[in-house]
Amino acid sequence: MTRKRLSTRALFAAGLCTLGLATSAWGQSMSDVQKVAKERGLSTADLLAAAQTFTPSGKIDDYLIFSSGGHSGQVFVIGVPSMRLLRTIAVFTPEPWQGWGYGVGEDVLAEGLVKGKENLWGDTHHPALSETKGDYDGEWLFINDKANARIAVIDLRDFETKQIVKNPLFINDHGGTFVTPDTEYIFESSQYNVPWGAAYAPTSDYEDEYRGAVTMWKFDRKAGRIDKSKSFAIELPPYWQDVADCGKLESDGYLFLNSINTELATGGIEDKKPPFEAGVSMNATDYLHIINWKKAEKVYQAGKYDMIEGFPVISMQTSIDEGLIYLTPEPRSPHGADVTPKGEFIVVSGKLDPHTTIYSIDKIKKAIANKTFSGSDAYGLPVLDFDAVMEAQVEVGLGPLHTQFGPDGYAYTSLFLDSAVARWTLGGVYGPLNPEPDWTLVKKTPVQYNIGHLGAAEGDTVSPDGKYLVAFNKWAVDRFFQTGPLLPQNFQLLDISQQGTHMPVIYDMPIGMGEPHYAQIIKADKLNPWAVYPEIGWDPQTQSVDPWAPRPKMERVERKEEGTVEIFMTAVRSHFNPEHITVKQGDKVIWHITNIERAVDATHGFAVPVYDINLSLEPGETATFEFVADTPGTFPYYCTEFCSALHLEMMGYFMVEPAD
Amino acid sequence: MTRKRLSTRALFAAGLCTLGLATSAWGQSMSDVQKVAKERGLSTADLLAAAQTFTPSGKIDDYLIFSSGGHSGQVFVIGVPSMRLLRTIAVFTPEPWQGWGYGVGEDVLAEGLVKGKENLWGDTHHPALSETKGDYDGEWLFINDKANARIAVIDLRDFETKQIVKNPLFINDHGGTFVTPDTEYIFESSQYNVPWGAAYAPTSDYEDEYRGAVTMWKFDRKAGRIDKSKSFAIELPPYWQDVADCGKLESDGYLFLNSINTELATGGIEDKKPPFEAGVSMNATDYLHIINWKKAEKVYQAGKYDMIEGFPVISMQTSIDEGLIYLTPEPRSPHGADVTPKGEFIVVSGKLDPHTTIYSIDKIKKAIANKTFSGSDAYGLPVLDFDAVMEAQVEVGLGPLHTQFGPDGYAYTSLFLDSAVARWTLGGVYGPLNPEPDWTLVKKTPVQYNIGHLGAAEGDTVSPDGKYLVAFNKWAVDRFFQTGPLLPQNFQLLDISQQGTHMPVIYDMPIGMGEPHYAQIIKADKLNPWAVYPEIGWDPQTQSVDPWAPRPKMERVERKEEGTVEIFMTAVRSHFNPEHITVKQGDKVIWHITNIERAVDATHGFAVPVYDINLSLEPGETATFEFVADTPGTFPYYCTEFCSALHLEMMGYFMVEPAD
Repeated sequence: MTRKRLSTRALFAAGLCTLGLATSAWGQSMSDVQKVAKERGLSTADLLAAAQTFTPSGKIDDYLIFSSGGHSGQVFVIGVPSMRLLRTIAVFTPEPWQGWGYGVGEDVLAEGLVKGKENLWGDTHHPALSETKGDYDGEWLFINDKANARIAVIDLRDFETKQIVKNPLFINDHGGTFVTPDTEYIFESSQYNVPWGAAYAPTSDYEDEYRGAVTMWKFDRKAGRIDKSKSFAIELPPYWQDVADCGKLESDGYLFLNSINTELATGGIEDKKPPFEAGVSMNATDYLHIINWKKAEKVYQAGKYDMIEGFPVISMQTSIDEGLIYLTPEPRSPHGADVTPKGEFIVVSGKLDPHTTIYSIDKIKKAIANKTFSGSDAYGLPVLDFDAVMEAQVEVGLGPLHTQFGPDGYAYTSLFLDSAVARWTLGGVYGPLNPEPDWTLVKKTPVQYNIGHLGAAEGDTVSPDGKYLVAFNKWAVDRFFQTGPLLPQNFQLLDISQQGTHMPVIYDMPIGMGEPHYAQIIKADKLNPWAVYPEIGWDPQTQSVDPWAPRPKMERVERKEEGTVEIFMTAVRSHFNPEHITVKQGDKVIWHITNIERAVDATHGFAVPVYDINLSLEPGETATFEFVADTPGTFPYYCTEFCSALHLEMMGYFMVEPAD
Repeated sequence: MTRKRLSTRALFAAGLCTLGLATSAWGQSMSDVQKVAKERGLSTADLLAAAQTFTPSGKIDDYLIFSSGGHSGQVFVIGVPSMRLLRTIAVFTPEPWQGWGYGVGEDVLAEGLVKGKENLWGDTHHPALSETKGDYDGEWLFINDKANARIAVIDLRDFETKQIVKNPLFINDHGGTFVTPDTEYIFESSQYNVPWGAAYAPTSDYEDEYRGAVTMWKFDRKAGRIDKSKSFAIELPPYWQDVADCGKLESDGYLFLNSINTELATGGIEDKKPPFEAGVSMNATDYLHIINWKKAEKVYQAGKYDMIEGFPVISMQTSIDEGLIYLTPEPRSPHGADVTPKGEFIVVSGKLDPHTTIYSIDKIKKAIANKTFSGSDAYGLPVLDFDAVMEAQVEVGLGPLHTQFGPDGYAYTSLFLDSAVARWTLGGVYGPLNPEPDWTLVKKTPVQYNIGHLGAAEGDTVSPDGKYLVAFNKWAVDRFFQTGPLLPQNFQLLDISQQGTHMPVIYDMPIGMGEPHYAQIIKADKLNPWAVYPEIGWDPQTQSVDPWAPRPKMERVERKEEGTVEIFMTAVRSHFNPEHITVKQGDKVIWHITNIERAVDATHGFAVPVYDINLSLEPGETATFEFVADTPGTFPYYCTEFCSALHLEMMGYFMVEPAD
């Protein structure tokens, strides 16, 4: 194929092919392409979309989508424009292809215990790529688990999860993860609020006992870990805090956090009370929380916090006293809050209001300075006057949720009820970047169906790329073959490279292994992943050579006192060494295994039946797992990753002699 | 988009568009297509491949691939020609997006206990679609777990796993699943052999104590379950039985089962003995096992079996006495055995022999009748003379593994070491179907890289479709963005619609969530899946209405004596009913929940934090889960599948009052 392409390019270069592409080595010409298109019922627009997305063997995608997997608990990595799933990353859910939770990763998963209990899944919502100066740097990825209020840290050198942190204060998060422009902190805020530590209190005590909070997790980039000892939280009213965004450039130092349920509704359909869906949606406006996190950091460092559930919390009274939090009204049933590339504006969409509402950080700062308050909320937090901080409103359509940005002054808002993506124009410095008037709807492209979030290429950074936008649709209905009653979601790729009203859908990608919410799209060449682990004996958990890793010629089985057997094993095409291991029933087994390959893609799997072990050992990787050999018998261990012509021969026998 | 396509078709119909496709509604023409192709470096061959595979929004794929997920433990469903993952099906591994193992499916997973222990993953290798008269009927799917010798049954009405069966005799299978032409039986044969029941015996006792076997699992199509009470096994020598295929039409009644390690090697690299990779590959030939399963069924029904590990086993001596098993030599390191569409030939590939060897069932039957033996093996099984049963050998290339068939007399063999797909011609009645001479290599298409199995559209049935072939490649190396040291596999789609030497790769699909082995490709319109469950209150495990399912107006919480609380809950956009549930710490909770939606795709998720519950409730589905409320607190339950504009409001509180 490569040679064929070169030869076509050569023809172009020689000027022999000005009207069309050259006839291929197979004698194929454009008329063959048209013939096939006709047979398959493809329009010219379809063929154009095909040409925009088809990515031949060996050609690398330009962008990567890092997508939440929803309640799969994982992260999906997808290439753009080909819209092919390149990898899942196991995060909160054990996954044996990656060996995650089947011999490695147990320590990380155990960090995620919830009230001492295993919750071996997650509801991932909002991934956040690490940023430097407000731009993705391709080094780290963070993601939340809404179901149990946890945060995971993924290293983009090897695409593996390194840490899971459980929030000690709340049990449900939605406003996370979002990072500060230099990734000093990762924000996580509560949604379905509970008493501190999810303690028991009846909903009749809701107003007094239930609390919201935003946690500022300190990220130690050098260690590659969240540093719990330098992290803290800020108490919030028990509204349902929703999606957030961090300020940047002009709004650097602020966090903008939506909320719903300022009604403090507690439901009760079973007692003929308004159900949550009604009770939570009664007010015409809820509150945008404007939080000065840089100031909060100083307040925390000054020791002005209480310890709650063993965690430092800045109280609402301290926030009022120190001027950390201001509210302002936002219409109606607000969901997304998104900061424009230069940080001047915050775009809020209320899902029951057909407008997006744009706030100005300049106006916010002035209103704070001038104390332009319309009052305070029930908890005493000052409310900034809406008209004093609002810059513009744009009617975009029904059910607006989230907004992303292009490089040319366009904003893109997802419309859940309209099932569409709206392109509209920003004002201010963005105005001259496109021909349309400021703050105006330009185009709505229908999507199939019911878009939730949307993502544009680097579309929430200080320098959006444009070109591509992906609609993360929630329903597929009739788009794909009916795979039983459970259908995939539908990621639709839109071409946003041209200004104006041309913004077609050019690819439908079914997501049949999870239900993504948000995703971020990064230029692929910003990442610098490892092709193989740096040295033989590498432990991905410490990202260093394991001192106990067996190296070539060091394979052995050591029988220790007190019924412990320690195994030092290597794996290389096409054998394990040793090939026989015999222990006594009841022995504690400590098993080290190292893949001593250096070739790219020379991964070995390693399965031990009965003992529920399966590893994925990438080139250079070492792993250690332990178990008690409580079940006697003859158990073949073997390589589960087809590695070579003699892969089937890559096995050995683990023998557990029965106790007398 | 639909309207645009119609308008193009209308132009064709009017004869206005004979030379090419119409200019689109956007004013796009073929020159725009060529411009984009040029910018992206696509050749005409690439554009043709794009036209062959690109599938616009709403157009349904023609074929479905049902692929093993390797050590992911799952099944993947992929559309052809678009090569998009439509769905994963959770089988041996818990998966929370489908709710599998997180509140439902636990009973099925518990059927898969191995020596009483949880093994919550599998190493799926060979899926088998149910057949009627040797053709896929689209009703059921079976798949093996090599790591622990288990078989799963999947219902293709709802794409859900209904049963897992653990083999009581052995601990590792590879020759499974394969079905008889009317799916009376599902075959599962052992590979890494062990003493019966995986009991302990040192490898010095290998020849006497270790045994192979093939199990014939009786499938009860009406019940949709394997009937263990009508299943049995046939004892085999402790060779490593490998891949198999079931006879059909002319060879109906037979099973053909490869083997390696007729050397009875037991490894020992750690003691300077030949490692398995050498010891298993010493003999120039191993044995093809020819098993008369219809005769074996009669022998079993006549009671001529022993009970071993509680399971009926026909002994080798009985097989010899009754003429159930014949061996014949097969060169060298044999792997795949594949029966031609009409059943006359069995194609065997030895991975260390550059030829495929073709056996004739007619010659086999004659050799059996005439007792044309070259001797017997160490266990007394008669060995048919190689020259008496061999029909032809075709030199195809290095590392041949598996063979599939087209409708036009072509066979396709995967070449692992050559990294290629070989097209070659069959003889006999297939000869006239193509222009090339019989038993001749026609073409080798390179693939990227190291192909294992391959699958052609309905390519192992009595009526192969041709058109498409997929190379299930094991290595990707440089084909995709480097996602850390762990790379995806690569499914490559080949166009086999033309005879002769034109057989290009037209799509690369990364498989970044498992490591598939075999897959079958079925015409999509053969399936008849449910769009929603037939009635409200449907229990997918029984495929009937659950008598306890709560229906509208039946929502309630019942407090029973002795600390048991039973909850009857419904879910509908956008609320649960009830919205509050309070129990006492220590209460046993029995929770029924029913999705009362009837709209296609109106799935609700249902998460209960702390208690590790997440369900996927498709329209009509009911589920029941139980737990002891041992942890007090306030726990918001909520819908995890974005269902509606007020999806976030679809929640409630589960309160566990602390014990006094």
